[in-house]
Amino acid sequence: MKVAYLGPQGTFTEHAAKKLFPEAELAPLRRIRNVAMGVEDKHFDAGVVPVENIYEGDVSKTLDAIRKCEKTKIVSETSFQVVHCVGALYSHGRITKIYSKDQALNQCEEYLIEEYPKADFISVESTSHAAKYVAQEKMSDAAAIASREALKMAGLEVIAEDICPDNRTRFFGLARKMTGITGADKTLLSIHPLARDEPGLLHKVLGIFAALDINLDYIQSRPDRSKGYYFYTDIQGHAHDKKVMAAIDSVRLCLDPEEKHPDCVKVLGSYHNSEWKE
Amino acid sequence: MKVAYLGPQGTFTEHAAKKLFPEAELAPLRRIRNVAMGVEDKHFDAGVVPVENIYEGDVSKTLDAIRKCEKTKIVSETSFQVVHCVGALYSHGRITKIYSKDQALNQCEEYLIEEYPKADFISVESTSHAAKYVAQEKMSDAAAIASREALKMAGLEVIAEDICPDNRTRFFGLARKMTGITGADKTLLSIHPLARDEPGLLHKVLGIFAALDINLDYIQSRPDRSKGYYFYTDIQGHAHDKKVMAAIDSVRLCLDPEEKHPDCVKVLGSYHNSEWKE
Repeated sequence: MKVAYLGPQGTFTEHAAKKLFPEAELAPLRRIRNVAMGVEDKHFDAGVVPVENIYEGDVSKTLDAIRKCEKTKIVSETSFQVVHCVGALYSHGRITKIYSKDQALNQCEEYLIEEYPKADFISVESTSHAAKYVAQEKMSDAAAIASREALKMAGLEVIAEDICPDNRTRFFGLARKMTGITGADKTLLSIHPLARDEPGLLHKVLGIFAALDINLDYIQSRPDRSKGYYFYTDIQGHAHDKKVMAAIDSVRLCLDPEEKHPDCVKVLGSYHNSEWKE
Repeated sequence: MKVAYLGPQGTFTEHAAKKLFPEAELAPLRRIRNVAMGVEDKHFDAGVVPVENIYEGDVSKTLDAIRKCEKTKIVSETSFQVVHCVGALYSHGRITKIYSKDQALNQCEEYLIEEYPKADFISVESTSHAAKYVAQEKMSDAAAIASREALKMAGLEVIAEDICPDNRTRFFGLARKMTGITGADKTLLSIHPLARDEPGLLHKVLGIFAALDINLDYIQSRPDRSKGYYFYTDIQGHAHDKKVMAAIDSVRLCLDPEEKHPDCVKVLGSYHNSEWKE
């Protein structure tokens, strides 16, 4: 089995790919869209892409790329916590430079600005490179952001732990075949109202889900480039559940009573709930 | 007047800052949070931050940073279109490398992957650096993504124009004093339901806006790090409009009937509608 993921190697998406497809042959690609299109065009059997980080927000590109596929669906979800720590030489003085990977610096921004308001943030290839660099260059005025293990391995003192608490990232597995019902599923929909700026339209749509006791886990609007909006929403239940099917039919007829625009509601996939919020 | 903006110099946020505060003394800061906190702490009179790009999605950090301020509010909005073109030497051969600024490469990704599926994307300091580099190094196998003017100025041939159509970015101006009613305003709210996972809660909230004919321009959910969610929504009208005030009061009482959590609804600011969708 060949699985594409958003590279490069050594990133958390690779870790997610190993978790979702433990036996697969993995290929790092450089763009989210390449991963989705690689699955769509049958160059790969499956794909893995990041979808949301609790600090950095959602990856709109992921949802846009999946929406544009015809056959490729979300089939699985995984999420895990990434614990970042601050490390420096045991003999360190005042810290004026902080090295890490760009994403880690972004995720830890709140803490770093609070604790090191005057320091320069310098992004390097990876968090472990940052740790090794500070150690090898014997920089007594620098710190690195990395995992506890990477800091220890580089011989640095861990001077602060878990500086961005609850730092979880969520990933989707993609494939060309919908998964079966597991009983604890979520379904991601893209909803494209054709009417522009009709007050209360979203309220009507959500009324259908509320009446059927279908909870929403996520909602996001995205401009559609022609004065309208897409909505992405994650609902509880599988797209083949009777209740979800009835809700989708109702939303479709609510938005498109003459049934001329089948794409006004699109199922982007159903997947077992990894309980990303827990 | 001193205005902080998300730097570095020469980016589109600087252009937005000049548009929103033409007379001001501008200071580039390196983090969105620093801009918001700089206004909050009175180091600056105002701030300018990006909030949404039609290709790259929203800047969740901006909304999170403003939500955490007590006094700093959104007071203005501006948006403009950025037209990217492809340039190469007049004598160019097959293109195998594409140089540009990271954001431009992201925004043009769809076109570039379609037209140059095998090319390497290389990010440099700015789009104009990319144009100059390809020209000066006489790279016949490379192209640069930049504005038509920058490509022409570097002496390159414009081989494709406007490769990511409708590429608009939206920016907010921040200050410590709410603006007055202009008659064509929008108000950004953060809504924090205290009840977890109650199906239909968002539907109830939106029902209040729908009943009052208040249209929503934007909605987004963000996890709150304790199993709940924030919602950000842009509604039509000013926070001092009678109808909007009544709606906010109703939403507050809907979410917090015992009036113990004043922060369950927060006005992040009201601003004249720049018609970002037009």
